[in-house]
Amino acid sequence: MGLLRAAGSVYKPVEELDLGPDSKELYVEANIKAPIMGGFLAKIFAWTLEAGIFGTLVLYIMKRINRVHEFISHAKLEEPPMFVPLHPFVELHEQEVIEIHPDASPAEKVQRATVCLPSTLENSLESLKPGYFRRWTVMDYSRAYRSGEITPLKVAERFIDAVRESSRRPLPVSFFINYDAEDILRQATESTLRYERGAPISVLDGVPMAVKDEIDCSPYPTAGGTKWLHRVRPCTGDACCFARLRSCGAILVGKSNMHELGVTPSGTNPHYGAPRNPYDPNKISGGSSSGSAAVVSAGLCPAALGVDGGGSVRMPASLSGVVGFKPTFGRIPQSGVLPLNWTVGMVGILAGTIEDAFIVYAAVSGQLPSDETTTLPPKVYFPLLNSTNQISNIKLARYGAWFNDCDEEVRLCCSNALHFLCERYNWKTVEVTILEIEVMRQAHYVTIGSECSTSLSSYLENLDRSEMGWDARIVVDIYGAFDSNEYIKAQKLRYRHMQIHNKIFTKAEVVVTPTTGMTAYPISKAALKTGELDYINGANIIRYQIAGNFLGLPAITVPVGYDKAGLPIGLQFIGKPWSEPTLMHIALAMQALCITDYRKPKVFYDILDKK
Amino acid sequence: MGLLRAAGSVYKPVEELDLGPDSKELYVEANIKAPIMGGFLAKIFAWTLEAGIFGTLVLYIMKRINRVHEFISHAKLEEPPMFVPLHPFVELHEQEVIEIHPDASPAEKVQRATVCLPSTLENSLESLKPGYFRRWTVMDYSRAYRSGEITPLKVAERFIDAVRESSRRPLPVSFFINYDAEDILRQATESTLRYERGAPISVLDGVPMAVKDEIDCSPYPTAGGTKWLHRVRPCTGDACCFARLRSCGAILVGKSNMHELGVTPSGTNPHYGAPRNPYDPNKISGGSSSGSAAVVSAGLCPAALGVDGGGSVRMPASLSGVVGFKPTFGRIPQSGVLPLNWTVGMVGILAGTIEDAFIVYAAVSGQLPSDETTTLPPKVYFPLLNSTNQISNIKLARYGAWFNDCDEEVRLCCSNALHFLCERYNWKTVEVTILEIEVMRQAHYVTIGSECSTSLSSYLENLDRSEMGWDARIVVDIYGAFDSNEYIKAQKLRYRHMQIHNKIFTKAEVVVTPTTGMTAYPISKAALKTGELDYINGANIIRYQIAGNFLGLPAITVPVGYDKAGLPIGLQFIGKPWSEPTLMHIALAMQALCITDYRKPKVFYDILDKK
Repeated sequence: MGLLRAAGSVYKPVEELDLGPDSKELYVEANIKAPIMGGFLAKIFAWTLEAGIFGTLVLYIMKRINRVHEFISHAKLEEPPMFVPLHPFVELHEQEVIEIHPDASPAEKVQRATVCLPSTLENSLESLKPGYFRRWTVMDYSRAYRSGEITPLKVAERFIDAVRESSRRPLPVSFFINYDAEDILRQATESTLRYERGAPISVLDGVPMAVKDEIDCSPYPTAGGTKWLHRVRPCTGDACCFARLRSCGAILVGKSNMHELGVTPSGTNPHYGAPRNPYDPNKISGGSSSGSAAVVSAGLCPAALGVDGGGSVRMPASLSGVVGFKPTFGRIPQSGVLPLNWTVGMVGILAGTIEDAFIVYAAVSGQLPSDETTTLPPKVYFPLLNSTNQISNIKLARYGAWFNDCDEEVRLCCSNALHFLCERYNWKTVEVTILEIEVMRQAHYVTIGSECSTSLSSYLENLDRSEMGWDARIVVDIYGAFDSNEYIKAQKLRYRHMQIHNKIFTKAEVVVTPTTGMTAYPISKAALKTGELDYINGANIIRYQIAGNFLGLPAITVPVGYDKAGLPIGLQFIGKPWSEPTLMHIALAMQALCITDYRKPKVFYDILDKK
Repeated sequence: MGLLRAAGSVYKPVEELDLGPDSKELYVEANIKAPIMGGFLAKIFAWTLEAGIFGTLVLYIMKRINRVHEFISHAKLEEPPMFVPLHPFVELHEQEVIEIHPDASPAEKVQRATVCLPSTLENSLESLKPGYFRRWTVMDYSRAYRSGEITPLKVAERFIDAVRESSRRPLPVSFFINYDAEDILRQATESTLRYERGAPISVLDGVPMAVKDEIDCSPYPTAGGTKWLHRVRPCTGDACCFARLRSCGAILVGKSNMHELGVTPSGTNPHYGAPRNPYDPNKISGGSSSGSAAVVSAGLCPAALGVDGGGSVRMPASLSGVVGFKPTFGRIPQSGVLPLNWTVGMVGILAGTIEDAFIVYAAVSGQLPSDETTTLPPKVYFPLLNSTNQISNIKLARYGAWFNDCDEEVRLCCSNALHFLCERYNWKTVEVTILEIEVMRQAHYVTIGSECSTSLSSYLENLDRSEMGWDARIVVDIYGAFDSNEYIKAQKLRYRHMQIHNKIFTKAEVVVTPTTGMTAYPISKAALKTGELDYINGANIIRYQIAGNFLGLPAITVPVGYDKAGLPIGLQFIGKPWSEPTLMHIALAMQALCITDYRKPKVFYDILDKK
């Protein structure tokens, strides 16, 4: 194969890179040559990849065509590897924050968070103007329960009716992989009794909450969207993140649907159906946390948990018109989450509003007391979202060529939103050049692929592969194709890209991008039936996600508008490590400018309506 | 290759393992089937490995024969990976320590260390009894310089004469890959002037110090024992560790010899010759820091720096009858050290005595102020080696089957030493079972191999391989044979073995082992001429080293006796992360029991002799 050997990229030292607006370095577009693979084509391709030495050769050629050889395998760079994006704590001196005791209980943290909330949404259920749409918030639920206008039990019954109805619609929406009406009613009854006794645990008490099928929650199996993973890896209890929500009184309403093993951003599952986009049931809700995005968008829950290994929380949030929040790597314990990878994925939050994302964040974040393997920030801050002092002098880094590498409507909408944001708050956009974004995407792919392959290897050995969708099957075949040199080179690139981003963060508080390069695309028959790989749409959707995962940076997406077809568009802010408070301040400011224009999805359940 | 597929080990959860003395788990011996490969055999083997698909097949079969497939590739274990053995700081509450300001300068730290030294060795040059051998110490040099008995310049001249004489001996000793008489004399002159002005920088001022050819030091190239690496990676200045020694006034006397790329523990270099064992010039001094061990053993320097990626400091120290000290991973900055790996190797210290190892440790240890990528201990302690209170209640964990898996004479000598130590200080030996030591050796091999291969990959692409010794060439070929699954599985095993060791450390302060399974073996003609791979002797020598590297644990070897041929034997103590003070206390106690029996090597230069 000597003739096929690609020349490796020679990477200049980071100090020599020009990251300014007039950098001579070119923006490299994703170079996707793969056709859409579903149905028969997918089967042929999977069989090829699994055909011993021939499959190995095909994978070798694929790595070459996709420039993995050039960017990764034969890369020449001096950086040391950065294996885990767990950043040491630095005192950031953020504006308008309060310090929180890191050992406070989840309920105490939620209490502290509610005190930080702005009053703008603190209107009662009645104060909604006609024609102005917004989803019910955690505080709406809490107030309605406390006032006795409605009980958690009544909400639970409505929820169960709604889910049943949704699965009978002309285009059935598969929100959940598992939900157990009896378990929901039992929790709701207990919560109702707590309100009757005047002793709710927190504002989350009785609030319905969905959890991605990648996160352990009793009494459900954890299948990760597969037909088999729960058989070889039984769920033995609540994951830490959900245990914290449960300790605040939240009601687990089911395991939300997801792309099988989280392998693509479409979110459509050939085994459990499509969590259709509430804004257009013919379209994807986005993945891999597709069900979590759909339930929040459709009003079934004010918030849900997802897992974000390559944008899997932020992409579906954006495509489904809700908030998606992936905190800094390590901020939420991964204990009890399917270990599909170890260094890029983490729990994230989907919610109707920034405020609700914040409340859930308050409940689930914080180091495990027993975890001595990681050193997390000794200090924890919450944003004072109710402060009368607007945070000032914010600079938002924008890389024009990248920002604009998206569909026209997305570009216009996001540019306008950014423009209004800066104008309204007197903030500044700083033009920068973020180099090697396409390299980072490939390094992330090598990383998540290698880790997922390792994680599943002992299960896959004895698995009848026909239990897998063809898309998951192909991806898992490709995931196993990397050697240790490629994996370690990817980690060297991780270090390099962290240095590049550190330099960008000396110029600005956040990097701003569209969340996805396009709005939701149609669900194909093949995707529903056999699973489908659509690398071209996939690359468009994932374009702005990688830094959040590969570098462990906190990132948040806010709905900022709709395309002509009425499909939601999100704007993403990516922050410095541990800068969640600033990120939430900025996201709230953005939301405040857009919320009065939010539209009601076609599929929507008014769970809290008292009629 | 389905027929060749090995069944993978299924690893039980660590909680279920019995690590007590009566554990039913069997001790698994290294299963080395490779012949000694030198000369023609080595050439044939290297050509085979480099023969495209055929080489790949041979590597596949080798991995199977050596149980890499069973222990690593197809291993089934639930542990997450631990990529870097950088341990969070835990307050250990060690006995007889003082806290040191972490930001103190190297010279200040050396000053603090000298105040902690015991008075037992604080005798003047004259007080040595006839027949009682010990090497000159740093304090001997310092006192002699201060009293004017001798000058650094005079010592430098003697040193240069001795090195010249050594290379003319019937069996020439190749201590150095590079040494520059002019540069040595220049440094010595400057130091002499400082003493004349009555202003030496520290007790290290004027003390000759050798540095392994793996560590950058001006004005020398850094070849890593090769004929070519310095051409593609120019040395641009002192590595941090040596810069700190230089700032204390130490004199760099040259780049000590090493095994090419550090690939085996013999230390013999086909390009630069053999750093022969000062106790028997027909024998190896041990590697890969072979030159550093030989210079200290032969009295040319009281201490030297080495690099320890798989015992490469402790093994040659033990085989050459000196102290070898590898601190906790991260304790000494790696900046300016050849990046032959990133997660197992680090700078270590070779010295004639524990006290001198401590002085050098004081100079070179401590976080780089600029290094924000790692979080090192916020507190630093030094051992009060001069305390009148002997540390008490020390428990030493001993795994009998492992401890005894060595040559008879080594076993007897080490057992006796341990027995006397416990008896003298009323300490206790705790019998334990440390599981899966052979698995750990293989996981370490996959790790160091993958990292070294990645580190060298861009250089090797354009290298004429005939510039490499056949041993290094074969090892580098094998190093590239691992896939990302094997690398990540090895990291999962790293986490597992850290848990196992954590449990052992609840029973004892240190683990005690012989340092090597045998004493120094003969230097073969093939090793000198073409390079030689001797996996059987190699496995005997490396048997007790891996935890120090793979788990980043601090470890120290003390000479405790000699075999019938007069070759040195070392005893090793392996400590908890960041427990260097306790380790030094224990090692000093051991040394105190043995030092009066230390023997003079056949090759010895009395550099400080005033006659």
